[in-house]
Amino acid sequence: MSLIKGIESANAEYSDKFTKGDLSLPPAKKAVIIHCMDARIDPSTSLGFQEGDVHVIRNAGGRASDALRSVIISQRLLGTREIIILHHTDCGMLTFTDDKLRNILKEETGQSVDHISFLPFGDLKQSVLDDVKFLQDNPLVLDVPITGYIYDVKTGKIHKVDR
Amino acid sequence: MSLIKGIESANAEYSDKFTKGDLSLPPAKKAVIIHCMDARIDPSTSLGFQEGDVHVIRNAGGRASDALRSVIISQRLLGTREIIILHHTDCGMLTFTDDKLRNILKEETGQSVDHISFLPFGDLKQSVLDDVKFLQDNPLVLDVPITGYIYDVKTGKIHKVDR
Repeated sequence: MSLIKGIESANAEYSDKFTKGDLSLPPAKKAVIIHCMDARIDPSTSLGFQEGDVHVIRNAGGRASDALRSVIISQRLLGTREIIILHHTDCGMLTFTDDKLRNILKEETGQSVDHISFLPFGDLKQSVLDDVKFLQDNPLVLDVPITGYIYDVKTGKIHKVDR
Repeated sequence: MSLIKGIESANAEYSDKFTKGDLSLPPAKKAVIIHCMDARIDPSTSLGFQEGDVHVIRNAGGRASDALRSVIISQRLLGTREIIILHHTDCGMLTFTDDKLRNILKEETGQSVDHISFLPFGDLKQSVLDDVKFLQDNPLVLDVPITGYIYDVKTGKIHKVDR
């Protein structure tokens, strides 16, 4: 069954009680968080954010290279000056390789997608370190604090990733 | 002041009461939502999602082309079969052009970024229609229901976008 009916009904209830119509466009806490699209994680509740606080970029794996366009816009046009990277345990990105997914797509669609990297990883901690370094080294990204965390989907707890 | 302290303290409180450690990796509602990184929108509260329900992809503007890698992973590896696209009023993407942002980056970093499109748009409704069509036409994307909405940041209300 389509989501549409549930979304529209939940939103009618939400907007009936809505009181946050005067928030401004630039994030109040001047920060951007990059994390995975995984359904089990809700950054607002698990990290304590309110509407208006931070930019939230989400993609498969929470990969920084795939977030670069958005990070540039967030920093240069909307004034954010801090980055949080959040990957998580039991991530789908740990379960496949580029070759495996390329083969699935070739079989199912007939398309050759050797030019696409799906950015999977084999080591969760290293994936966070790699993504912090990717942003630190990128000349288009401002020199701001960047902190990496791993979220444990079994406990709801975040753990800071240090070298 | 850095976000770190606030995040860690909010998460300690969240994880102390955490009861959702047995959710499974594939989204329960077999859907993926693509929307903007804008700080003012919280998809879980405004659309009524719970942890475990849907994949959430977020980027500057909620642009579908920038979400393609994640959509492919969501559909082919994690079984989602419905897509919701959500753009919003007062979006930052309505405030600049590629040339403007490229010039800012050239001035501030000395880097030439003519090869990057930042995917701004001038017409909000058209941006939703374009992104629905981008996914409908892409041979790597499954033929599933795709619905576009605009979220009004002044009222918290979503409006379906029809041709």
